[in-house]
Amino acid sequence: MLIWAYRYTVIMRIARFSLNDNVRYAFVQTDEYEGKDYLVALDGFPLAAGQVHPTGERYALDAEGVRLLAPIIPSKIFGLAKNYQAHAQYMDEHHLTTATPKPGEMMIFTKPSTAVIGPDDPIVFPSYSNDMNFEPEVAVVIGRIAKYVPVERAMDYVLGYTCTNDVTLRDLQMSDPMWTRAKGFDTACPLGPWIETELDYTDARIGFSLNGEVVPEASGTTAHLIHSIPQQIAAISQFSTLLPGDVILTGTPNATGSLHPGDEAVVSVEGIGQLRNVVVRG
Amino acid sequence: MLIWAYRYTVIMRIARFSLNDNVRYAFVQTDEYEGKDYLVALDGFPLAAGQVHPTGERYALDAEGVRLLAPIIPSKIFGLAKNYQAHAQYMDEHHLTTATPKPGEMMIFTKPSTAVIGPDDPIVFPSYSNDMNFEPEVAVVIGRIAKYVPVERAMDYVLGYTCTNDVTLRDLQMSDPMWTRAKGFDTACPLGPWIETELDYTDARIGFSLNGEVVPEASGTTAHLIHSIPQQIAAISQFSTLLPGDVILTGTPNATGSLHPGDEAVVSVEGIGQLRNVVVRG
Repeated sequence: MLIWAYRYTVIMRIARFSLNDNVRYAFVQTDEYEGKDYLVALDGFPLAAGQVHPTGERYALDAEGVRLLAPIIPSKIFGLAKNYQAHAQYMDEHHLTTATPKPGEMMIFTKPSTAVIGPDDPIVFPSYSNDMNFEPEVAVVIGRIAKYVPVERAMDYVLGYTCTNDVTLRDLQMSDPMWTRAKGFDTACPLGPWIETELDYTDARIGFSLNGEVVPEASGTTAHLIHSIPQQIAAISQFSTLLPGDVILTGTPNATGSLHPGDEAVVSVEGIGQLRNVVVRG
Repeated sequence: MLIWAYRYTVIMRIARFSLNDNVRYAFVQTDEYEGKDYLVALDGFPLAAGQVHPTGERYALDAEGVRLLAPIIPSKIFGLAKNYQAHAQYMDEHHLTTATPKPGEMMIFTKPSTAVIGPDDPIVFPSYSNDMNFEPEVAVVIGRIAKYVPVERAMDYVLGYTCTNDVTLRDLQMSDPMWTRAKGFDTACPLGPWIETELDYTDARIGFSLNGEVVPEASGTTAHLIHSIPQQIAAISQFSTLLPGDVILTGTPNATGSLHPGDEAVVSVEGIGQLRNVVVRG
């Protein structure tokens, strides 16, 4: 786990933001008096540990011209399918199963980096689909080059965690043998609001709300993962070298549901924050 | 199509090379008197048209310390499965079919950028597989941002073409529902020897030789593609924004076959050149 110290505070949240189209990284600090979050702008790229310096500039999250971006643009994104028993059961019961991992094995898919969007960016519902689903998840962000990593040392390679919505075109997932379009279309991978470096990844509570209403049947905790986060990192690193900034979507815990143009989708992970996106017609 | 002029020669081959670990781009020029290829080193990155300048340095391809690299590290790689009738038939007859595109539709998979290797780099046969296959193909390299591109204008977005070997772990392709490991493992995407900007993409002849022996049943021509190169670019750009340097593996034309540790695999495309790699045990 990489941690940055700024003055006397242990910094745990890394954000990427734009101010008048100038893109930079920041630490997110809570002003205890105001109860308000501030971006402490950085020179440099926080993935190169020790290379970042606070610039002295501080911006309120809601300041004019300030916009949070996806905290990382990964070189690659892996995702785990059916990695919770409750979700696998939901998919089977609703006849949504198109592929099933072998017992004890992981079913791993990919999304391209062009699928990534940030907080408050629109999810574009493509014209060639009629069935878009949400899938709230915890995303792991890799901090160091990882190859042939044993499970016991897997967590040494983690920079932190962020929220994701593994947006899926269910009809294309049913019709296409590969999930390249279904899970890889532009805007299919919202990430944010920032990278939290400190999280109890063994029991991170995932929630989802749609148009302001909590969807309790979509919630869960990473305590119920079939393949744990260190197991995922270890297994992926056996066949593919994970680079700093690469992302693993760890699986959606339970039921999913439909998204329609105009919908507001909010993924929340306790200890990280909330990732909000609105669906628009493509 | 982008073309660079250097002195009075239209330059058609773009290479990436290292000289004593210093990585640069080059044009490849043939010295007509010597009948020998030279790298004309460039300042800059040829994907930003007009931004490159010859440095005045020229190196023989076989000069000491000179090594050709993969001509591009793509942000993403798409590949077409079963995109030649002869290959689809070969797969069916040999009971290697794991998934079939719907009539008239493309079956598109992805490889991560960490799978890319260059000319003469080793293909690493992973310990968890017992069945590695070669698949010689033409790879298309995108030159401009491509989104919602119509077929008629698709070729405007092409920088050029290179050779590829869509190396596949056939046993994992049979066992895993997704092809993430089977086609995405490290070293699964040899690219090279350079990007040829001028090619008759409608009839590019693909060949393959194994340990110095031509494998005639693996050969073919892009004239027999089911989905043409402009159709592929147009279709992919409908769901995913193609970025400069992105690569499309257009399909293997015919039979494939096994690779074993120690094998020398050479993909050739007439008008481009040869891509040679040796298989090593991982």
